[in-house]
Amino acid sequence: MKYADRIKRMKASEIRELLKITQHPEIISFGGGMPSPHSFPVKIIDKIADKVLRTHGAEALQYGPTEGIKELREAIIKRVRKKGIKCEIDEIIITTGSQQVLDLTAKIFLNPKDYVFIELPSYLGAIVAFNAYQPQYIPISMDNEGMLTEELKEKLKGIKRSKTDFVYTVPTFQNPSGVTMSLERRKQLLEIAEEHDLLILEDDAYSDLRYSGKDIPTIKSMDKNNRVLYTHTFSKSLSPGFRLGYAIGDKERIRKMTIAKQGADLCTNTFVQYIANEYLRSGLIDKQLVKIKKMYKIKRDLMLKALEKHFPKGCEWTKPDGGMFIWVTLPPKIDTRELFVDAIKEKVAFVHGSAFRVDGKGHNTMRLNFTNTDDKKIEIGIKRLGRLIKKKMK
Amino acid sequence: MKYADRIKRMKASEIRELLKITQHPEIISFGGGMPSPHSFPVKIIDKIADKVLRTHGAEALQYGPTEGIKELREAIIKRVRKKGIKCEIDEIIITTGSQQVLDLTAKIFLNPKDYVFIELPSYLGAIVAFNAYQPQYIPISMDNEGMLTEELKEKLKGIKRSKTDFVYTVPTFQNPSGVTMSLERRKQLLEIAEEHDLLILEDDAYSDLRYSGKDIPTIKSMDKNNRVLYTHTFSKSLSPGFRLGYAIGDKERIRKMTIAKQGADLCTNTFVQYIANEYLRSGLIDKQLVKIKKMYKIKRDLMLKALEKHFPKGCEWTKPDGGMFIWVTLPPKIDTRELFVDAIKEKVAFVHGSAFRVDGKGHNTMRLNFTNTDDKKIEIGIKRLGRLIKKKMK
Repeated sequence: MKYADRIKRMKASEIRELLKITQHPEIISFGGGMPSPHSFPVKIIDKIADKVLRTHGAEALQYGPTEGIKELREAIIKRVRKKGIKCEIDEIIITTGSQQVLDLTAKIFLNPKDYVFIELPSYLGAIVAFNAYQPQYIPISMDNEGMLTEELKEKLKGIKRSKTDFVYTVPTFQNPSGVTMSLERRKQLLEIAEEHDLLILEDDAYSDLRYSGKDIPTIKSMDKNNRVLYTHTFSKSLSPGFRLGYAIGDKERIRKMTIAKQGADLCTNTFVQYIANEYLRSGLIDKQLVKIKKMYKIKRDLMLKALEKHFPKGCEWTKPDGGMFIWVTLPPKIDTRELFVDAIKEKVAFVHGSAFRVDGKGHNTMRLNFTNTDDKKIEIGIKRLGRLIKKKMK
Repeated sequence: MKYADRIKRMKASEIRELLKITQHPEIISFGGGMPSPHSFPVKIIDKIADKVLRTHGAEALQYGPTEGIKELREAIIKRVRKKGIKCEIDEIIITTGSQQVLDLTAKIFLNPKDYVFIELPSYLGAIVAFNAYQPQYIPISMDNEGMLTEELKEKLKGIKRSKTDFVYTVPTFQNPSGVTMSLERRKQLLEIAEEHDLLILEDDAYSDLRYSGKDIPTIKSMDKNNRVLYTHTFSKSLSPGFRLGYAIGDKERIRKMTIAKQGADLCTNTFVQYIANEYLRSGLIDKQLVKIKKMYKIKRDLMLKALEKHFPKGCEWTKPDGGMFIWVTLPPKIDTRELFVDAIKEKVAFVHGSAFRVDGKGHNTMRLNFTNTDDKKIEIGIKRLGRLIKKKMK
């Protein structure tokens, strides 16, 4: 059968395929990128859903405006103000998860062969979304302070740019690396964007999940000239199954995104918008986040401790202040794709790091998720991995 | 600001803009395409939502498989079998409304300038979705038996085709015309598709809503060689706010659609998938459809009667056996765009017909929705319109 040319770049997410293997209950999986089901406020949602249906049944089950219901947009405007982000009602759009923001951004900006400047490694879902619009990637390396802005600067020099290129970054507790971009780098990135008339797509999926250290301002909060399109999700604070996120940007870009969304799915699920609205306005979100962070901090600490104890010398890993992931770099002689095969036999799983890199490198890296494994199993799983790595190092 | 080239074709749906004007409660609007809020099974949803959360909270709030939860896919397979459609579990994908099927189909098949064969008039949401992928439209006229298959045949002769072109049709109670394609034409369309190696996208949004006449088999049910990609929605039988639909097609196409959906929104809202699953399995959907059809039949009959009574000679309209719309053709001297301006002053609204035609013609046509207006107001609104038309005809 024949398909459009763009389909050639659209491959099934390697991770999703791997994860099918690792869903066996006997396997301790650090592979997925899922929140713990214990983080879901099931009873609260049950109560709110009942209230919404009793008081707003007709509206909550009807088509809604493409840009999202006004009540929820207003509640979000209030909430992001605490993060230093000022925005008006026509500068925000509610989306079918923040994943849809990635798709729509690429849809409205990218002509084939346009450039996307992207971190090494980066969020795989973004790469999958962008690929459909056939861009060229310019990978930018990272260190413990995030994207190497000097490298971005250098790489911008050497190329003939289109006006619709953009930089994609997950600056806080990045998926997959767990790294947070320093304040200095954020400022530099904004300066570069100003100088080069470049759009920044700031994917702020994880900032609600800080377990240690101090908040760093979002890039959007320092954005004076509308260089930043900002996206956030309710997947970590409410429910990923709700597929609820939003984008904030200047009026014109949000308008274009709204037009693109009309064709994509008409509007975001109205029912869950009403539920999220109540969840925000009641303040229950903050109470729940306290619980979630407490739960995840324990898991992060357990995993870091286990890594220290069971991983041999020569292995390095990030120590994230939040989010859901730890990034491990093994000695160069170890290939984590091969390690994966052995790991599955030992009933433990992870994702090999090269899956997250547009340059396909990073053969000796891996991503570990710590949020979706029972506390008791974290050390057991890391111990198994450590044993395998030691064997390979011999 | 600069955008991708494809954005030039992506205009805000004219209707959505018009509808904003017509939302004033004083206006009797036949303009929108919305189900009646009285058709929503609010109490049933409330009960099922509670049950789902109590018994499947952890799964219903988590990310789900991109192709949709297995339980719902199985329930749909059972249901469509009654419509004569046989399909396996890997031949179905749950989507964010059937609107997403339109977007994903265009995404996986259309290269810029590929052909889409489309009815005159056609569903505006489809045109909006396809436009983003920059196709060329080949319009096919309709009569009271649906698409003129002879015209399709003729037009196929004159062009150099790509292998990824497709025919888009809403064969049953079409939006906007209310017309149903006859069995004979359906068979002819399939034959043409066979002969020309052409894909048919069958948008079956309205077949649940039959008020008179006999069921006509879906094109998919007669499809022996996988020429048809079939889509249906829960917007008319459950809730449009849920954004829940599905596509059925051959394994390989559904697989490609799944890959495209990964990038678009990862998965369909899991919570409402669980609700829909229970709604189907319990049989409550059929009980509710009986109620909905009874309610809408009354409205259709009221509108047809009022048209007979208040519209002058020289006006024609379709007499649909189901669905949500009636299509009116006025004498050629009347321009319905101009009529709209006067109608708003008289506090009654509709959508001018040219909005639904890719050739921009049909200046003297209009679409009337009858499902979302109170019974008592239907005749009042039609009477007002009739009066205006008579004035224009003088």
